[in-house]
Amino acid sequence: MDHRTPAATVGVVGGGQLGRMMGEAAGPLGVELVVSDPTPDCPAAPVVRDQVVGDFEDYEAIRTLAERADVLTFEIELADPDAMERVGEETDTPIHPDPGTLRTIQDKLVQNRTLEKGGLPVPAFRRVDTEADLRKAGEELGWPVMLKAREGGYDGRGNRPVEGPEAAAEALEEVGGAALAEEFVDFERELAVMGAVGDGETRAYPVTETIHEEEILRESVTPARTNEAVRSRAREIAFDVLEILEGRGVYGIELFETADGEILVNEIAPRPHNSGHWTIEGAGCSQFEQHVRAVLGWPLGDASLRSPAVTANLLGDVTDPRVAELAGTESILGTAEASLHWYGKREARPLRKMGHVTLTEADADRDTLLSRARKLVGSVSFK
Amino acid sequence: MDHRTPAATVGVVGGGQLGRMMGEAAGPLGVELVVSDPTPDCPAAPVVRDQVVGDFEDYEAIRTLAERADVLTFEIELADPDAMERVGEETDTPIHPDPGTLRTIQDKLVQNRTLEKGGLPVPAFRRVDTEADLRKAGEELGWPVMLKAREGGYDGRGNRPVEGPEAAAEALEEVGGAALAEEFVDFERELAVMGAVGDGETRAYPVTETIHEEEILRESVTPARTNEAVRSRAREIAFDVLEILEGRGVYGIELFETADGEILVNEIAPRPHNSGHWTIEGAGCSQFEQHVRAVLGWPLGDASLRSPAVTANLLGDVTDPRVAELAGTESILGTAEASLHWYGKREARPLRKMGHVTLTEADADRDTLLSRARKLVGSVSFK
Repeated sequence: MDHRTPAATVGVVGGGQLGRMMGEAAGPLGVELVVSDPTPDCPAAPVVRDQVVGDFEDYEAIRTLAERADVLTFEIELADPDAMERVGEETDTPIHPDPGTLRTIQDKLVQNRTLEKGGLPVPAFRRVDTEADLRKAGEELGWPVMLKAREGGYDGRGNRPVEGPEAAAEALEEVGGAALAEEFVDFERELAVMGAVGDGETRAYPVTETIHEEEILRESVTPARTNEAVRSRAREIAFDVLEILEGRGVYGIELFETADGEILVNEIAPRPHNSGHWTIEGAGCSQFEQHVRAVLGWPLGDASLRSPAVTANLLGDVTDPRVAELAGTESILGTAEASLHWYGKREARPLRKMGHVTLTEADADRDTLLSRARKLVGSVSFK
Repeated sequence: MDHRTPAATVGVVGGGQLGRMMGEAAGPLGVELVVSDPTPDCPAAPVVRDQVVGDFEDYEAIRTLAERADVLTFEIELADPDAMERVGEETDTPIHPDPGTLRTIQDKLVQNRTLEKGGLPVPAFRRVDTEADLRKAGEELGWPVMLKAREGGYDGRGNRPVEGPEAAAEALEEVGGAALAEEFVDFERELAVMGAVGDGETRAYPVTETIHEEEILRESVTPARTNEAVRSRAREIAFDVLEILEGRGVYGIELFETADGEILVNEIAPRPHNSGHWTIEGAGCSQFEQHVRAVLGWPLGDASLRSPAVTANLLGDVTDPRVAELAGTESILGTAEASLHWYGKREARPLRKMGHVTLTEADADRDTLLSRARKLVGSVSFK
């Protein structure tokens, strides 16, 4: 493998915070990014070579990326697999992960079926198109069930628990049509494993514990505060998931740990993921550098733990959109163990991910790190 | 302190690898960089908001930076202090470090005098304008002496040892006029301390050992492989140096450790420095993030050691300029403890700094790290 200038160019559909952090990681490798995003001056724009303004399904924008890049990838599930596939065929630009993998993941029913077929443990689920389907699913799986829109949901949007048959009609209307119902998993904790598929090699990062509220990730704790057997099983399952995915790249594998220590696969993200932000400071190679290496087919980087890490999201604590202005950041900047990541979004919206803070400390007590992270996040505000 | 979008903009005179790494460090903080550099598409360009094409003394270019920035700084000593001062007065944009500090440092005679006046230990030196001055200096200081051009020298260019009076004429011609002669320091090793001056606070990083060949930095080893008393004295002197410098920012303080364990100040760089590249992986806060924080007057970051680190430069091993293409980088990318930094320069030139590799490992033996770093650098080539 050779390095020239630029060492390589990666085209990325999407230019949000994940694209921005990919760009920050690509620079030291000599890799340049060109991103496409509908928002002019998107979060990634100031740190990458160029932005093409275009929707995630905009064929022309994606084609421009492919023509300028050695490999095409995406940082958002809204990227259009059909447009990418067509561009890939026309330009011979490789696309990673495979658009087929994205298609599978975009439809949660197909995703669950694929996982199940691959022998992976998933919550019991049923296809739900009508109210009758949902009532039947509830009877078979037992109430309550978790109703999920098959497509388009993220950060918990499109998911809702349904307590019983009387709530079926309203729930289905809210989720909006094609859906699936899953048995309600009364999990002990939620876990995530970031995995990477390279050119003939796979890696998995240490197991992360994720803490959600209103179905939005608030904090992650790595290594997860569970027992070694559970962590080991979670990594095994993550490697099994990587086996059935097509195409190189970093994948976020979200898991449930049940009360009796079983692991179930919740969801796959075919890209770097919020639950892997801790890797920037806490692992040898960050998930963002790893993704860049993986899609280029370069040797994968070191996925091992450097030090325990807690990441806490900086969410818009506002009731209405307003110009983003976070007051009191000196508390974060003045904490030796804290690293601030600010995504450069112009507008704060309720619960919007505006940035994050990671605390790392060698041999740290994770409970203490977590409470310090919460305190730091609590000390700043958009109001 | 507040964070908005962008959190702040820093204007940087110079867009070489130091500007590039400043840009890479600024992104996560939400800080945007605008750089000025005479080379279109300079190394920093792909990772910063914008480049203004202009010489380092180009008043209009510097003024454009100042108008777009919250603070003006520089990453190269060739930045023109007069132009910056004029722009600062006209636009009210603060400039850090102070252009006066840059002026002092640009003239090695003035630099030495300032250090001496500040009570800092420097090699004995004499002003040299004529051959007669040089002969006299040699008689007083003892032959050989180190002849240094007062201005414009870097990476050892402009420095040469003079063995005796018979070599005086030729040496002076080579160095080209206004010079100084220093006693020849038969050092045990060369050391460097990166220091940071913030808003009412100063920090110093652990002491680095620097290894030069043909007066160009090849490797750095941190912590320096010397005894604790020497390291402690080196840091004390670094703090004393920071005391006499005007303006916030990161400073590279190059030192000699003499055979009897004395410390002498060799040179000051009013900016991040090659001997501090290890801080990206080896310290809590990199010298580049530190510089950004410092010039903005933000709280300084953690300058403590995370793990021992060795940095080795990737220099152009070519005899003539050619398009930069480094073969065999998979050896570096495939080493878990190694981090590659590629500066994006289009042309490899003899001994030009094209990139660097840092090896970090907790509790590592530094001799082993150094020999591994040398082996890695030896495994790649521009030829």
